[in-house]
Order: sequence, then structure tokens, then C-alpha cells
Amino acid sequence: MSPKLGKLYGVGVGPGDPEALTLKAVRVIREAKVICAPRAAADSESFALSVVSGHIDTTRQKVITSLFPMSMDKSVLEAAWDKAAEEVSAELSAGNDVAFLTLGDPSLYSTYMYILSKVKTLLPEVESETVSGVSSISLAAARAGVELARGGERLAVMPVGRDMDAVRTALTGFDTVVLMKVNRSFGRLVALLEEMGLLGSAVYVSRCGTDRERIIWDLKSISDDELDYLSLVIVKT
Amino acid sequence: MSPKLGKLYGVGVGPGDPEALTLKAVRVIREAKVICAPRAAADSESFALSVVSGHIDTTRQKVITSLFPMSMDKSVLEAAWDKAAEEVSAELSAGNDVAFLTLGDPSLYSTYMYILSKVKTLLPEVESETVSGVSSISLAAARAGVELARGGERLAVMPVGRDMDAVRTALTGFDTVVLMKVNRSFGRLVALLEEMGLLGSAVYVSRCGTDRERIIWDLKSISDDELDYLSLVIVKT
Repeated sequence: MSPKLGKLYGVGVGPGDPEALTLKAVRVIREAKVICAPRAAADSESFALSVVSGHIDTTRQKVITSLFPMSMDKSVLEAAWDKAAEEVSAELSAGNDVAFLTLGDPSLYSTYMYILSKVKTLLPEVESETVSGVSSISLAAARAGVELARGGERLAVMPVGRDMDAVRTALTGFDTVVLMKVNRSFGRLVALLEEMGLLGSAVYVSRCGTDRERIIWDLKSISDDELDYLSLVIVKT
Repeated sequence: MSPKLGKLYGVGVGPGDPEALTLKAVRVIREAKVICAPRAAADSESFALSVVSGHIDTTRQKVITSLFPMSMDKSVLEAAWDKAAEEVSAELSAGNDVAFLTLGDPSLYSTYMYILSKVKTLLPEVESETVSGVSSISLAAARAGVELARGGERLAVMPVGRDMDAVRTALTGFDTVVLMKVNRSFGRLVALLEEMGLLGSAVYVSRCGTDRERIIWDLKSISDDELDYLSLVIVKT
């Protein structure tokens, strides 16, 4: 007889400040038999893991780090996610609870949701729980001293792709626009903000809550090689 | 000589689950000389205060609760905010650090930002810090089992006012729309969602993370007297 399936937790660890962890995240991480942490190719170790390292006891807990390449090629990404989902499923099948770490909040642009879908196709009866975290959007706003929305205001959140029309539309119809994944289209974004007269109302925030945090109001001063993949731009229109 | 001004902290306590508090929120609340908690007229006591009560020691900390009426009348609201800001400023002037509690995250639709503005006009040199929290949007999504955004998707967050055109526009252009303050315009919202064929893709969440949490997918089954002011609707378009 196979053991009872372990439970899968998608744990938001916040944007990078270890103090931004919730009490629940700490408890779930301490209690899980297995910790699974994504690792970007751009980093030598898992950033999410470093945020929670103070709460892990490697003498009784197993740590898996899965390499998630920063690729634009969907088949490369899916192969990486499949492999991670298989590793997680193997632990769950062995009866181990798994805490899958994700930066920020798991509901917002996290890889956990892909992993969860894939694990559920492998183990349809698996029990899962999402542990909400502080989003990078909230912390970036707090650190930059800007408000995301008040009263009747509207907030839009979107990644910046090649097509700038959607960004333009959002900047026209919303009071605050948070632009994610800005590093690949930064030049086009700056040009659009300048054209719309919004360069003075935009702030670039990268690696918020960490030693490497940068908050820059003069977007034109940022060179391409300074751009970080963990960065966003908040625009007050 | 007057004492050094205290520091003002705007502390997000999350949506209501005491385990959704961050480690930083707990530390700041434990260290502050004064805790200021908003209290809605609809509640007999401060909900935000009840979330953190396990971390307060009333033998050495002072607790102030400020009544913030649920009024649509701006002059009534401003009078209440002015009064709270004056109380907070008096404590800061006496050299006491103040932790002003706010549900969810202080950057998103919180009263703290109004209080901060008013305190800064009274005490221009005051030092302040925003302590980010888990937003009700993140926790509601996690509890309802829906994702706010993945990949290239776009998210819109807005309160529902009398005018439904902005809601309609957001539902047309965004992948996920989170509608706040739905209780006053719920009938109109349900009618719009039905007209747009989106009733099956919408979920109502109130008081998430608390004993009184409700997650309802059949919006038409909700009667007016069930509607809670701490509620939102997430629509996947």
C-alpha cells in the first residue's frame, strides 16, 4: 500500500526582505519535510531559498532547488517546469509535505501556479494550499513612498511586452500603472513615458527589500546593463 | 526643549488572519509605545486590533482606537481623519513611536495614507515608514483558488462606483479584474456581469482569512443583507 500523499504548499516568501515573511509562511516552511526552491540561471543560488534560510533545518529537512531558466522559449520553460513538477510529485507520493517557495505572492506572476497545475495532472487527488505573501508591487510602492490606489482610484498591473499599445491604453485609463518585467523593453517604455509626459511620475524599483535594492526616479539615467530581471516601474498618471 | 519626535509606522496587518502578519509587522507592533487602530462604525471593536491582539502588551503599550465612519460624506470622513491624525501627532510630539494599523496592505485603499498626509502637515519633520502587508486581493485569490495573473496577463483593480462604464472597459481589456467595495453597487455589477456572459467566471469573497469568510461563486444567490463592506469580486475574463 502506498503512503498517504503529502500536501503541497505554494508559499509566498515576499519580495526579498526576510522580515516580510508571514508567520504562516514561517510555520509551513518549518513543518514541511521537503522545501523546493526555484533558482534562476542568472543567480548562483536560489534567491527565494536565501530569504527563508534562517527557518530551515537541513538536518531534518530536504532542500531541492530547481533550475528555472530565464528563457523566452516556451518549450525550454515547460521542460524545466515539468522536471520540477515531477520532483515535487515524487516527494508527495512518498508521503512528504512539500513547501514550494515563490518570491512575492503566489497569485501574481509566480511559477508555482504552473507547477501546481502539472502536479495536479500527475496526482489528481493531491491536497494543496496557497500561502499568500507580500507582493513585490506592495513593497516597491512602500519603499518608493508612493500609493498604489486610494478612494475611487484604479490600478493596472501588466508586464511590458513588445507591443506598447496596451501600456499606452492602461496609462490613459488608470490612476496607477505597475509595469512588470521591464528589463527587456526598457528603452521603448522610457520613450513612451516621455512622449506621454509621464517620465516625471514614474519610478523604477529593483530587488526591493534586499541589500541590492535600487529606487530610481530618473529613468533616463538607467543604462541597459544596470537593468535587473527583478524590477518594475510604477507610474502615477 | 521638546523631546525627539516619535516615528510613525503604517503597519499592514493583512486581511484578517493573524498568521498573515509579517515578522516585521509583529516586531514593529511589539516595539511601538502606542498602537492606533481604526474602528469602523459597523464593528463593535477594531477588527485590525483584534488581528494583532496577541502581540500587544497593554501593561506597557497604549492603545488608541479611532472611529472611522463608513460614510459617503467626505466632510464626515475628513473630520474623523483629522481627529485621528491629531491624536497620532500628539503621541509623536511626546516622543512616542506610533504603529498605525491598517487592514491588508497600506499602499492599497488604506486610510493610513490619508492619516500620513495629515500628520505630515502637522509635523513636517516626522519620520515615517510603511510596513507592507498581505493584501486582501492576494488572500482572496488564494482562498478562492484563482490566479490573479500569469505570464503576459493583465490585472485591473478598481472600486465599483455608480458608473459601470469603467468596469465594463476593464472587463473588456484585462484578463483579471478585481472589484472592490462591491456592496453598494452589487445589483448593478451582477447585471453587467450577466450581460457580458461573465457571471460564471466571477467569485465573491468577503472577510477572507477570518471565521466569517465567505466564498461564493453564484453571485445571484447573494442577498443584499448578506453583503459585507469587507468584500470583493474577482472576475476572470
